[in-house]
Amino acid sequence: MLTEHEIEIRVRYPECDPGGFLHHSRVFIYFEMGRTELLRASGDNYRRWEESGLYAVVVQAECRYLKPARYDDLLRLRTIVRRVTGVKIEHEYLLYRDQDLLCRGRVVLALVDSAGQIQPIPEEMQAVNVESHRGSRSEQPR
Amino acid sequence: MLTEHEIEIRVRYPECDPGGFLHHSRVFIYFEMGRTELLRASGDNYRRWEESGLYAVVVQAECRYLKPARYDDLLRLRTIVRRVTGVKIEHEYLLYRDQDLLCRGRVVLALVDSAGQIQPIPEEMQAVNVESHRGSRSEQPR
Amino acid sequence: MLTEHEIEIRVRYPECDPGGFLHHSRVFIYFEMGRTELLRASGDNYRRWEESGLYAVVVQAECRYLKPARYDDLLRLRTIVRRVTGVKIEHEYLLYRDQDLLCRGRVVLALVDSAGQIQPIPEEMQAVNVESHRGSRSEQPR
Amino acid sequence: MLTEHEIEIRVRYPECDPGGFLHHSRVFIYFEMGRTELLRASGDNYRRWEESGLYAVVVQAECRYLKPARYDDLLRLRTIVRRVTGVKIEHEYLLYRDQDLLCRGRVVLALVDSAGQIQPIPEEMQAVNVESHRGSRSEQPR
Repeated sequence: MLTEHEIEIRVRYPECDPGGFLHHSRVFIYFEMGRTELLRASGDNYRRWEESGLYAVVVQAECRYLKPARYDDLLRLRTIVRRVTGVKIEHEYLLYRDQDLLCRGRVVLALVDSAGQIQPIPEEMQAVNVESHRGSRSEQPR
Repeated sequence: MLTEHEIEIRVRYPECDPGGFLHHSRVFIYFEMGRTELLRASGDNYRRWEESGLYAVVVQAECRYLKPARYDDLLRLRTIVRRVTGVKIEHEYLLYRDQDLLCRGRVVLALVDSAGQIQPIPEEMQAVNVESHRGSRSEQPR
Repeated sequence: MLTEHEIEIRVRYPECDPGGFLHHSRVFIYFEMGRTELLRASGDNYRRWEESGLYAVVVQAECRYLKPARYDDLLRLRTIVRRVTGVKIEHEYLLYRDQDLLCRGRVVLALVDSAGQIQPIPEEMQAVNVESHRGSRSEQPR
Repeated sequence: MLTEHEIEIRVRYPECDPGGFLHHSRVFIYFEMGRTELLRASGDNYRRWEESGLYAVVVQAECRYLKPARYDDLLRLRTIVRRVTGVKIEHEYLLYRDQDLLCRGRVVLALVDSAGQIQPIPEEMQAVNVESHRGSRSEQPR
């Protein structure tokens, strides 16, 4: 199970607003793509989760916007598993254009079954806490 | 069953693009709102259709764009049932700002069950053909 | 200048996701509609701000999701001016379905000119701090 | 100037609707990505067009939906220049999942300046008509 992953995202025309910049609501869609691809890169697949009746629901989301992104910018999104408890998974998201940090986000997920009942986080995911902690020692995220 | 209905739509900021105008893809979302509200005004409800296992799927969609809409414009969408056959429903859509016709669209729907099998259009909907024809005699749509 | 305002929002079909619920990113679009309508109800107009070269940019956004909203739900969004400083405006957002609080959000805005330079918040908007404080004494928000 | 180009698109979670399928309005966003990337692959760049005051506006758009796409599907979009006149550019779009053709679309563009005045299509783009015609002889699009 990876604890960090990076993807590239090309900003689409209708994701930008009349002000000319990426609309602030869209970064949460990018963040979701980031955690989906982190899962895929770890050999797992979120669509299969849903097919087996396990759904990730967002319980908290936040973002700080430092610099705007524009149409057609090629961005780099770094997704980091920050904390996994018995019932919650927390990722951090860093969105860059070249070396410029544009946004820093945080999303907390819970897992529910199709009836909406909270489900425990799988043990193999909880194990990433330790790895993530080790990782952060050797490599300081900006 | 009504064969025509009108709703008002306020253009949202992130529905517009860096060019400053309503993105052309969004009108199909407006058209869907138009047919949903026509159904509601007729005493029916599309969410209940889905809850009972009947889904409307779009088989064809088209639009001609005559004038652009801008952020914060208050638009008027007129939805008209144009044709109902045993397996298809066709609506026409006229999107106005004041007296200016901005777009003219057409969407063809089919009904499917949860397995994706084509379902017959309910007879009471097929009856609107006649009403629609009568209506169009007394009132010429622009 | 009003410090609170309420609008109704009907959840659109493509605003919901395959899980069947309003996608978490869309509430930030609703929040933006809430502050736009608060401004309009106060006799002002955000489109005119942009036409005069003044842009509101989001510097921070967050939301806690308590209960999910579904397709076709008729929601009530309450927008509250929480704090206005010399350079920032902070609103709180409470999204309800009937008496159920679904989401509680917070968005911080700054004003910039067309060159992206931070502009001071107009004095009449800063005055709402006092009014807002008075209001919160007589009426405790949930 | 290329007359055909292909890109891959991964269907995003919030691009799908409660029915579980890619919402029909989103394909027009995909088509726009297709023509943007065809232009980039030809050594040109649409963002630079806008920076120089030339805007592509959609005057007509249509699509036939043959099979639905689902969340997380990896699709292949083929964009083909079909016709270029003095004032219009017409592309055809074929959206595939593996060998299955899901959608066939057509979008007609005009070019305008920042005042909205129709601009002539650059001669080098009009030249593609001939190439496209030659191309279609040797290679029958499905």
